[in-house]
Amino acid sequence: MSYTALSQHFEQLHHLQHLGAICGWDQATMMPAGGNEARAEALSTLAVLCHQQLQDPRLSDWFDAAGQESLDREHSVSLAEMRRQWRDATLLPADLVRAMSLAGSRCEHAWRSLRPANDWAGYLPLFEEVLNLSRQAASARAEALGLSRYDSLLEQYEPGMRSARLDTLFDDLKSWLPGLITRVQDKQRDEPLLLPQGPFATEQQRALGLEVMALLGFDFEHGRLDVSAHPFCGGVSEDVRLTTRYNEQDVAQALMGIIHETGHARYEQGLPGRWRRLPAGQARSMGVHESQSLFFEMQLARHPAFIARLAPLLERHFGAQPAFSPDNLARFYTRVTPGLIRVDADEVTYPAHIMLRYEIERDLIEGKMEARDLPERWDQLMQRYLGLSTKGNYKDGCLQDIHWTDGSFGYFPSYTLGAIYAAQQAAAMQQQQGPLEQLIGTQLPTVFEWLQQHIWQHGSLLETDHLIRQACGQPLDAAVFRQHLQQRYLADAVYA
Amino acid sequence: MSYTALSQHFEQLHHLQHLGAICGWDQATMMPAGGNEARAEALSTLAVLCHQQLQDPRLSDWFDAAGQESLDREHSVSLAEMRRQWRDATLLPADLVRAMSLAGSRCEHAWRSLRPANDWAGYLPLFEEVLNLSRQAASARAEALGLSRYDSLLEQYEPGMRSARLDTLFDDLKSWLPGLITRVQDKQRDEPLLLPQGPFATEQQRALGLEVMALLGFDFEHGRLDVSAHPFCGGVSEDVRLTTRYNEQDVAQALMGIIHETGHARYEQGLPGRWRRLPAGQARSMGVHESQSLFFEMQLARHPAFIARLAPLLERHFGAQPAFSPDNLARFYTRVTPGLIRVDADEVTYPAHIMLRYEIERDLIEGKMEARDLPERWDQLMQRYLGLSTKGNYKDGCLQDIHWTDGSFGYFPSYTLGAIYAAQQAAAMQQQQGPLEQLIGTQLPTVFEWLQQHIWQHGSLLETDHLIRQACGQPLDAAVFRQHLQQRYLADAVYA
Repeated sequence: MSYTALSQHFEQLHHLQHLGAICGWDQATMMPAGGNEARAEALSTLAVLCHQQLQDPRLSDWFDAAGQESLDREHSVSLAEMRRQWRDATLLPADLVRAMSLAGSRCEHAWRSLRPANDWAGYLPLFEEVLNLSRQAASARAEALGLSRYDSLLEQYEPGMRSARLDTLFDDLKSWLPGLITRVQDKQRDEPLLLPQGPFATEQQRALGLEVMALLGFDFEHGRLDVSAHPFCGGVSEDVRLTTRYNEQDVAQALMGIIHETGHARYEQGLPGRWRRLPAGQARSMGVHESQSLFFEMQLARHPAFIARLAPLLERHFGAQPAFSPDNLARFYTRVTPGLIRVDADEVTYPAHIMLRYEIERDLIEGKMEARDLPERWDQLMQRYLGLSTKGNYKDGCLQDIHWTDGSFGYFPSYTLGAIYAAQQAAAMQQQQGPLEQLIGTQLPTVFEWLQQHIWQHGSLLETDHLIRQACGQPLDAAVFRQHLQQRYLADAVYA
Repeated sequence: MSYTALSQHFEQLHHLQHLGAICGWDQATMMPAGGNEARAEALSTLAVLCHQQLQDPRLSDWFDAAGQESLDREHSVSLAEMRRQWRDATLLPADLVRAMSLAGSRCEHAWRSLRPANDWAGYLPLFEEVLNLSRQAASARAEALGLSRYDSLLEQYEPGMRSARLDTLFDDLKSWLPGLITRVQDKQRDEPLLLPQGPFATEQQRALGLEVMALLGFDFEHGRLDVSAHPFCGGVSEDVRLTTRYNEQDVAQALMGIIHETGHARYEQGLPGRWRRLPAGQARSMGVHESQSLFFEMQLARHPAFIARLAPLLERHFGAQPAFSPDNLARFYTRVTPGLIRVDADEVTYPAHIMLRYEIERDLIEGKMEARDLPERWDQLMQRYLGLSTKGNYKDGCLQDIHWTDGSFGYFPSYTLGAIYAAQQAAAMQQQQGPLEQLIGTQLPTVFEWLQQHIWQHGSLLETDHLIRQACGQPLDAAVFRQHLQQRYLADAVYA
C-alpha cells in the first residue's frame, strides 16, 4: 500500500529529525565551545539528508496512488499532512534553498555582533540579500499555492491563516489597544508596588522551577530542565527539553520563562501517542503552540489564584519578604510598562510589538517598502503604538529580533494569535468547568484535562479554525482577548 | 576525482556517526527513562542509514578508479583505510547482519536480568543463537579475507593481529604470570595498609576529578565530564564526552576511572586534525586505544611520583587522614588480590582474566568447544590461573561480561595488548626523556608531548606494528610488561 510506504518514509524522517533535535539541544546546553564547528557540519549534513528524504522521487507516485486508496478519516488527514510537508519542501528550487540558507546564516551570524554595536549600516546589505531571496521564495511559493506572496510565507507557520484576516484583526487591535494601555497605566500609577529583593541563588531558583513544573503536571519521565543562553523548548515529544537562564537579581524572569516553556512542553507531551511519528501527530501550528505557552504563562500563572499558590513557594525558597505578599505579587506580575524590547514586554503591550512587525514584514515581502526604510518605519510605528522613539537606536529597534535575520518572515503573528487563542480557551474552560479562580486554586488537573481533551490530543488532525471552534465555540475572536485584558487590568479589584 | 568523491562520502558518514555518538552519550547520561523507546528507534534508523552509506553501489567503481589515481603516501593510506571500512561493511549478507543485531539485542537485554539471577539455563539458548550467528559471520569473513575464523573477527578490533601471535603471547604470560601473582601476594601480605575512610561526597569527588583531568591536560574546550551507570569515553574527537560514577564510600573507583577515560580522551583529542573526518584520522585500534587509557591509569597514575602529587589533592578535597600518606596510597593503589571480577581486577591479575577469555572465545568461534561447556571451562581456567572457583556461580563467572552477549568476539585481547603497549611506551619514554619519576614529578607536559608525537598524531596512518616499533623500538613485546610488573611489584622499595 502506498499509504503504508509513505508512513514508513515519514517515520524515518521523524527519526532523523529526532537526532537533529537532541543534538541541537545539546549544542545549546551541553556542548563545549570547541565542538561547534564539527557539530555544525554534522547538523548540516543531517539537514541535507532530511531534505533529500522529502525530495525522494518515489514520493510523487506514492502520493498519487495513496490518494486512490480507501482510508478512514484520520488516515486521510495524515495523508494530507504528509502531502503538505512534502509540497512545502519541494516548492522551491534547490539553488534558492541553498542561497537562502547561506545568506541567512551569514546575516544571522553578523547580526550577533552588529546588533550590540548598533551598526545598521553594516547590517543593511546583508539584510537586503536575505529579503531579496525571501521575496523570490515568496513569489515561487505564491505561484504554486495560489496565494499572495506574504500569505505563502504565513502558510508555513500558521496553515490556513491569511493576511486579509490578520489585517482585520490588527485593525481591530489598533482601534482599542493604545487607549487601553494608557488607561491601565493611569490606573496603575498610584498602586503601591514592592519589588522583590535579591539575590536569588540559582540553585534555589532551579529548585523552585522544578517544583512549579511538577505542579503544572510536567512529566519528568519524558523531559528535563536545563540552562541555555536563549531559553527554548526543544527535544522531541517523548523527551521534551526545556531550558531557561537564571539572573540572581531577578526572581521573575526564569520562573515565568519556565512556566511559559512548560506550556509548550505539555502540548508536546500531550500530542496523540499513536500519531507521534507522523506529521498528523505534530503540533497544529505556531499560533496554537504559542497559545499553550501563553495559557500557562498569562492565563494561568499571572492569575491571582495561581499567584496565591506561588507566594508560599517563593517564601519557602527565598525566605519571607513583604514583596512576596500575594497582593503585591499580583501587582508585580501584571505591571504594564511600554518598552522598546518585545521579549521583555508585558501581556498588554506585547500585541503592539507584533502589530508593528506584522505591518512591516507584510509590506517588505509584498514589495511595498524597502529594507532601507525599515528604521524610519519602525520608529514611526513605535511612536504611534507605544509612544516611544527608536531614532538612531537600532539595537533596541529594528535590530532587536533574530527572526528576519535568517528570513523567517510570517512568524510574528503567531505570538498574538496565541495570546488570543489562549484567552478564548480560558473563557471556554470557565464556561464549561466553572470559575478559573476555583479551577486554579483547587482543581489544576481539570485545567490540564480540558487542554488535553480540546487541544493537545488532536495534534494536527483538525484544521486550526476547526480545533478552536470545537474547543471554544468560535474560531479566532479578539473580543475575548480584549475582555480578558479589560477584566484583569481595568476592573477595580486587583483580584478581578 | 574518485578519491575526492570517496572522501566526501566518508566525511558524510562521519557526520552521521557524530550525531549517533552524541545521541548515544545523551541516552546514557541525560535522557529521561521515558525517552528510550523513541531514541532507540531513531538510533536504529541512523544505523541503517550508515550501513546504506557503506553499501552505496557507486563505492565499488570509485575504489577501482581511485586505485589508479596518483596519490601521495598519506592519501594512499587514507584510501586503504576507507577501503577497509567499506570491505568490513560489505562482507556479510544483509540477512545475517539483521539476524545478528536482533539476536544480540535480545541476548544482551535478557542478560541484564539473567546475570543478577545467576540464571545460566535461561541464558544458554539465547547465547547459543548469538554464537551460532557469530560463527556464520566468522566463516563468511574468514573466506573473504583469507583468514582463520577467529582471526577474521579479531581483525575488526585489532587489524593485523593474528591468533598464532596471541597464542605465543598468552603462552608466555601463562608461563610466568601465576607465579608472579603468588610472589607479589607473599610480599604484600605483611605490608601495612590503611584503607581511606569515607564518606567522600560526590561533589568533592567530581571537583577532584576535574582537577586531575586538568593536570592530565584534558582540553575542556573540546570535552566534558558527566555521570553514567557504566563509565565510558564517547562523543567525537572534537568534543569528547567522559563519564564516571561516584561511590561515596570509595575514593579510588571514580578517580581511577576518570584517569583511565582521560587517557582514551587525550588520544581522541590528539588525533590528527586534518584527517579527523576520515578513517585515516581515527584511532588505530582498540589495543592502541586501551594502551592510552592504561598508560594514564597504570603507568602514570599508579606511579609513586604521581601518587605523591595526588596525596595533597586528596587532603585538600577530603581533609587529612593517615591513609592519604603517599606511602600508604602507593600501597593502596598497587595492592594485588586475585578476584572473580575482571573489571575490579588489579594491574597484575588482570591479564589472567584476559588469557581465560581469549582461550574460550577462540575455541568457541573455531568450533572447538560449545556454548554449553562454557561454565565448566571457565571454572577450570579460573582455578588454574587465579586459584578461584566459580562452580555454580555463573554471575561472577561466565555471565559477568557484556561482550559476548551481543557477539563481540575478538575484543578481549585488546585489553592485554593495551597493557603491554603501555608498558613499552613508558619504557621508551624513559629511555628517550629520562626517568619517569622525574617526568611525572615535574615535567608532565613532556609525557603528553611524547604521546602526541609518537601515538596520537598518527591516527590510523601507520599500521599498529609500525606505530609501536617507531615509538618503542620493538613491536609488541611482553617482556617489557613483565619487567614493569616485576619492578613495580617485586622490587624491595615500595617506590621502585
